[in-house]
Amino acid sequence: MMTQRVKEILSYYDSENPGVRSNLARFLNHGRLAGTGKLVILPVDQGFEHGPARSFAVNPPAYNPLYHFQLALDAGCSGYAAPLGFLEAGAAEFAGELPLILKLNNHDLLLDEHDPISAVTGSVGDALRLGCAAVGYTIYPGSAMRREMYEELRAIAEEAKSVGLAVVVWSYPRGSGLSKEGETALDVVAYAAQIAAQLGANIIKVKLPSAHLEQAEAKKVYEAQKIPLEPLAERVRHVVQSCFDGRRIVIFSGGPREDDATLYEEVKAIKAGGGYGSIIGRNSFQRKKPDAIAMLHKIMDIYAG
Amino acid sequence: MMTQRVKEILSYYDSENPGVRSNLARFLNHGRLAGTGKLVILPVDQGFEHGPARSFAVNPPAYNPLYHFQLALDAGCSGYAAPLGFLEAGAAEFAGELPLILKLNNHDLLLDEHDPISAVTGSVGDALRLGCAAVGYTIYPGSAMRREMYEELRAIAEEAKSVGLAVVVWSYPRGSGLSKEGETALDVVAYAAQIAAQLGANIIKVKLPSAHLEQAEAKKVYEAQKIPLEPLAERVRHVVQSCFDGRRIVIFSGGPREDDATLYEEVKAIKAGGGYGSIIGRNSFQRKKPDAIAMLHKIMDIYAG
Amino acid sequence: MMTQRVKEILSYYDSENPGVRSNLARFLNHGRLAGTGKLVILPVDQGFEHGPARSFAVNPPAYNPLYHFQLALDAGCSGYAAPLGFLEAGAAEFAGELPLILKLNNHDLLLDEHDPISAVTGSVGDALRLGCAAVGYTIYPGSAMRREMYEELRAIAEEAKSVGLAVVVWSYPRGSGLSKEGETALDVVAYAAQIAAQLGANIIKVKLPSAHLEQAEAKKVYEAQKIPLEPLAERVRHVVQSCFDGRRIVIFSGGPREDDATLYEEVKAIKAGGGYGSIIGRNSFQRKKPDAIAMLHKIMDIYAG
Amino acid sequence: MMTQRVKEILSYYDSENPGVRSNLARFLNHGRLAGTGKLVILPVDQGFEHGPARSFAVNPPAYNPLYHFQLALDAGCSGYAAPLGFLEAGAAEFAGELPLILKLNNHDLLLDEHDPISAVTGSVGDALRLGCAAVGYTIYPGSAMRREMYEELRAIAEEAKSVGLAVVVWSYPRGSGLSKEGETALDVVAYAAQIAAQLGANIIKVKLPSAHLEQAEAKKVYEAQKIPLEPLAERVRHVVQSCFDGRRIVIFSGGPREDDATLYEEVKAIKAGGGYGSIIGRNSFQRKKPDAIAMLHKIMDIYAG
Amino acid sequence: MMTQRVKEILSYYDSENPGVRSNLARFLNHGRLAGTGKLVILPVDQGFEHGPARSFAVNPPAYNPLYHFQLALDAGCSGYAAPLGFLEAGAAEFAGELPLILKLNNHDLLLDEHDPISAVTGSVGDALRLGCAAVGYTIYPGSAMRREMYEELRAIAEEAKSVGLAVVVWSYPRGSGLSKEGETALDVVAYAAQIAAQLGANIIKVKLPSAHLEQAEAKKVYEAQKIPLEPLAERVRHVVQSCFDGRRIVIFSGGPREDDATLYEEVKAIKAGGGYGSIIGRNSFQRKKPDAIAMLHKIMDIYAG
Repeated sequence: MMTQRVKEILSYYDSENPGVRSNLARFLNHGRLAGTGKLVILPVDQGFEHGPARSFAVNPPAYNPLYHFQLALDAGCSGYAAPLGFLEAGAAEFAGELPLILKLNNHDLLLDEHDPISAVTGSVGDALRLGCAAVGYTIYPGSAMRREMYEELRAIAEEAKSVGLAVVVWSYPRGSGLSKEGETALDVVAYAAQIAAQLGANIIKVKLPSAHLEQAEAKKVYEAQKIPLEPLAERVRHVVQSCFDGRRIVIFSGGPREDDATLYEEVKAIKAGGGYGSIIGRNSFQRKKPDAIAMLHKIMDIYAG
Repeated sequence: MMTQRVKEILSYYDSENPGVRSNLARFLNHGRLAGTGKLVILPVDQGFEHGPARSFAVNPPAYNPLYHFQLALDAGCSGYAAPLGFLEAGAAEFAGELPLILKLNNHDLLLDEHDPISAVTGSVGDALRLGCAAVGYTIYPGSAMRREMYEELRAIAEEAKSVGLAVVVWSYPRGSGLSKEGETALDVVAYAAQIAAQLGANIIKVKLPSAHLEQAEAKKVYEAQKIPLEPLAERVRHVVQSCFDGRRIVIFSGGPREDDATLYEEVKAIKAGGGYGSIIGRNSFQRKKPDAIAMLHKIMDIYAG
Repeated sequence: MMTQRVKEILSYYDSENPGVRSNLARFLNHGRLAGTGKLVILPVDQGFEHGPARSFAVNPPAYNPLYHFQLALDAGCSGYAAPLGFLEAGAAEFAGELPLILKLNNHDLLLDEHDPISAVTGSVGDALRLGCAAVGYTIYPGSAMRREMYEELRAIAEEAKSVGLAVVVWSYPRGSGLSKEGETALDVVAYAAQIAAQLGANIIKVKLPSAHLEQAEAKKVYEAQKIPLEPLAERVRHVVQSCFDGRRIVIFSGGPREDDATLYEEVKAIKAGGGYGSIIGRNSFQRKKPDAIAMLHKIMDIYAG
Repeated sequence: MMTQRVKEILSYYDSENPGVRSNLARFLNHGRLAGTGKLVILPVDQGFEHGPARSFAVNPPAYNPLYHFQLALDAGCSGYAAPLGFLEAGAAEFAGELPLILKLNNHDLLLDEHDPISAVTGSVGDALRLGCAAVGYTIYPGSAMRREMYEELRAIAEEAKSVGLAVVVWSYPRGSGLSKEGETALDVVAYAAQIAAQLGANIIKVKLPSAHLEQAEAKKVYEAQKIPLEPLAERVRHVVQSCFDGRRIVIFSGGPREDDATLYEEVKAIKAGGGYGSIIGRNSFQRKKPDAIAMLHKIMDIYAG
Repeated sequence: MMTQRVKEILSYYDSENPGVRSNLARFLNHGRLAGTGKLVILPVDQGFEHGPARSFAVNPPAYNPLYHFQLALDAGCSGYAAPLGFLEAGAAEFAGELPLILKLNNHDLLLDEHDPISAVTGSVGDALRLGCAAVGYTIYPGSAMRREMYEELRAIAEEAKSVGLAVVVWSYPRGSGLSKEGETALDVVAYAAQIAAQLGANIIKVKLPSAHLEQAEAKKVYEAQKIPLEPLAERVRHVVQSCFDGRRIVIFSGGPREDDATLYEEVKAIKAGGGYGSIIGRNSFQRKKPDAIAMLHKIMDIYAG
């Protein structure tokens, strides 16, 4: 049965058709966090984004695409996101077992770019054919190519929603408009989250923001309004607020592998700040499966607690 | 987690894309019979088929479309099937709560016809927009209009499957080719089930067959091969066999309201004969809700037992 | 400001996109009945349906299409419905002044038919171009051509809703399946209303039902369930119930000109029975304008009272 | 390696694109008769055409669609033909194992008709998706509906050939234009074969002709030209000649089950008359599998001898 | 009959329709390596890629497109790949004799480019018309034009698979993102193979990797995880692992002509490392035919041994 909290979250999407709302509900009602309004999603696009060895060599079973479906299932994740090839390689075996997100654009590192843009590597039709609940798309606010990305996303989102698929946007500030430090600056992450929400994203994925402020004009306001930069939970709260005052699901990525204590502290901060959950790739599949499950369960326990 | 039995059933549909298989899995993994390989589906198309008073006056809350969603949920049914209007009237409120079947064609009784054909009253696009897991379509083998129906179904099924929707076919022999008694004759029901399967149906719905044999040529074979006409379980077994030796899901409708003892005996016979379950409309919503739930639970207990 | 009642009515259409809901709100929030949840709509398709002299000779200013826009405005009607030509002839002059319904199919009397079907005389594109809030379509349940009409309406409704237009269905039982008396029989009118609702109509227009019962199978149920046939308010209540338990807007037409006392009694019955309002053509424009306005105001006062 | 005989046969189809020729070659190079220029094809459309019990009760494993794929494989048949449902039920399991023909139209016996026409129950797209080498289509020359069939076939053949699929035509004289005896009359069968060839069929399937002559005008010519009516081999030779002097593959069906001695004599006559082979359904699957294989091998031995 | 190994390989493609699986089976079941799960494919696109003299002058019969079909056949190759012109020039003569791959994009050397992209020179429709079992497409990871290529491939793969054609991707790192040595660096080749797999390739073709490591970030991982760089078999194993842990067919190209001893050693390494086979162009057709056949047979013997 649908919990009150899930019903409340779904009510934020009242302009979407029942198909989109049903697919959002599938994430919110699946796995160990079903019904809590919190999500922990397993994303595995690193094979494309960073190459196979950097992604999987530390835990070789993860070269196998079936591994990740099974990990997401065994750990009770809310869903699993991957590019076309990885989903095609397991969607039949795992048909109906967990909500899938087809990551529609992807980017490799075989060329150094100042202004990155991902390539579209799957379609809304592929997502339907493979039984997915959502499509995913990455934008790089700050890139000189951002207009192409925003416009591509617009078209994809319109098509996806018309056939009842939810739209998940990875919003990663990057490109010639930003300093390296600026990519995770609080003002920039909040801005990138807002852009994704304004582009019609149903679920928004951002990185955890640092206490850095990148843009001078923004900095003035942060200081004048005394927007707290510490602790992390306050920064999370600010990003959540920037996602339509919490009326859009926003989840946070952990980034590269880090020590578990830090990870759990971050999750506690996400929870304290009102975040909707985590999307945890490398920290999940770059360790042995039992360890990954233990770690994911611990994170879920924090969210559910 | 997927049971062995559900995995086995899904393996019969290995030519379908993962989307169709996922949606079949949604029915098989929902409600009180989740995982058993058995289905009890609530269909409510009688408002269109027989008119509102004949359908709902005996239990007036059933005039309300939300009533049926809630009944299907509360009783733990495997899914709910209805025409466009009834689904539009509740799909948003119940988004993500249970697998839906959009009944794509419907027929009214305001004109007397020898050779009936239903009108198409919804589309594959409607099904996606409303978050359905399947589309439904009725054929009347025996009608002089059957060619139109088979061809319409062919086109709809091709479109539906291409976007990952499962296809449910109501196969009801009727029309100038058949006597009234022939409409439920064992040979005719088995034939109608086979036709639906050959047309690519993923789930087939037929009426429970009587021991009557309609066609002279068929009768010879039934006698020569000593195909048992009694008891009902044997007739069910024959229909299941006629659905690709049990490799297609075939469920049986109860028809008009009848006394519960008879109903339970029929369900026992369906189970004993290897049927996949029941689709129970009027017997469900034409009584008070607590009674309906008790009755549906009892039926599910028989299937699960 | 949106009243509670209008919000409640709009909530019944939660599966529709905000465009459709906005256009429904335009009718509910326009004219003298704005905010009450009641509607009085002026329809003028009689020029096409009955010919100009039979329609307008009794009140010659009504030959002028601008007359009807002005009448609807002056009387404070909730909206105005007409075929393509009449709307094209005034949509510019009255742009933005009142919600319009483009009647998409129309029928003339220059051929005697047993099984009528109207011709499609306008498009969804026309409705957008002319600034309409809704499209209208007439079905004749009981006609041997009903399948063509239901399927045509299905396609039109899907298109109209996808561009945010509301869908108004005139459901008029007629054709070889029915006796003349049966066209307004309570069971038949309720059935026809249900069919329109199942076809996805947002607003349903039917005739006031008589106490006659047409179909033998239905009659049994009406008697067994003691569905009251008198007074008129009870029959209205039954039709409202047949429109998804009142969760679809259903309005009643007055039919041919009749004396005003009768008319007001009917309106009181519609109100008492929970009907959403009236659609009053000939009784409005077949009298002098001041009289028409007085009459319409009196009706509105009954509804608002 | 391609034999001289197969190369010669393919040369008759020199106007077809290489895709069609490749798919014709697949039949000619598959199974025990590979390379001989002879074909023995297993068709199983009786479930649709005659109903399941009449088709499969005498050998119940044949209810299972996988049975027929396996039978065709084990017996070394040149190909397997069936309607959509039967192919969907095994195409994945047997992917790449034998050339398939998707029977695109099918007919049931639940309505008595003077002028039959089959319903289209599959598409060229289905054939590609299922990995078929050809599509099949039945025409009934002699039926008042023949124009519809010829035109439908024309469109299907044009589409199928454009995507490289071969076209197999079942040409079965039937309908109000013919006496019962006339359906297998030599003049009529030869005429029906010619019509199929003229319609662009790549492979033509007809029934073995009797020595009867149906049409008076034809009879005059048969007598004047001393076209031999006996023995059967001469009649086969005449049909082969009627298929563009043997430049179209024409195969003969055995019809209902008969005793094996007769069957083998017929095969010898087909061979002696220059026929390209047999399409043997009921005689194959209506007996135990080992017997069927032995029988089919014996037939193949006659052709190969 | 299908071997266990071929069935296992096909099971990796369970999300594809039976058409794609059938066409994959055609390669796996053709030629001298039929049934072994190994492939040796003849590709002849050098006429386009390097010009005719550089390609064929050393063995002038190879100017004739029929030569290559015959060579592939005589040597018992698993398939033959070429651009549109070469296939059109022989597809009719060799219809049905061996599985063909239409190379859909091609690149010439008449312009010096830092960031190459091939031109699309054939279509999915061409592949069907010519009777091909697959389409081929080349991507250049590392090129600034890679986004265009990935997106073009995405669209082509979706179309090809929908009509049952397999998709072969040549993944050749090249362009301004890479050093010359980097084009065959182990980390880069493994990455390029992964990208092809993620783009949905059914068969992946890469060059044999050197022991060089190109990317600093990757190098760290290779060293930390002790991924062996020697011998060649270990590098092959790493690439196979990078193709979804061996669940995608990956074959290796020999590159420019080299001495046969080296070639055989490479093949032994491919086999030892679990590679699926070779695609050998210049080493095959740039020598006399009998020598080429002897060489190819020797290679096949190694794979089959």
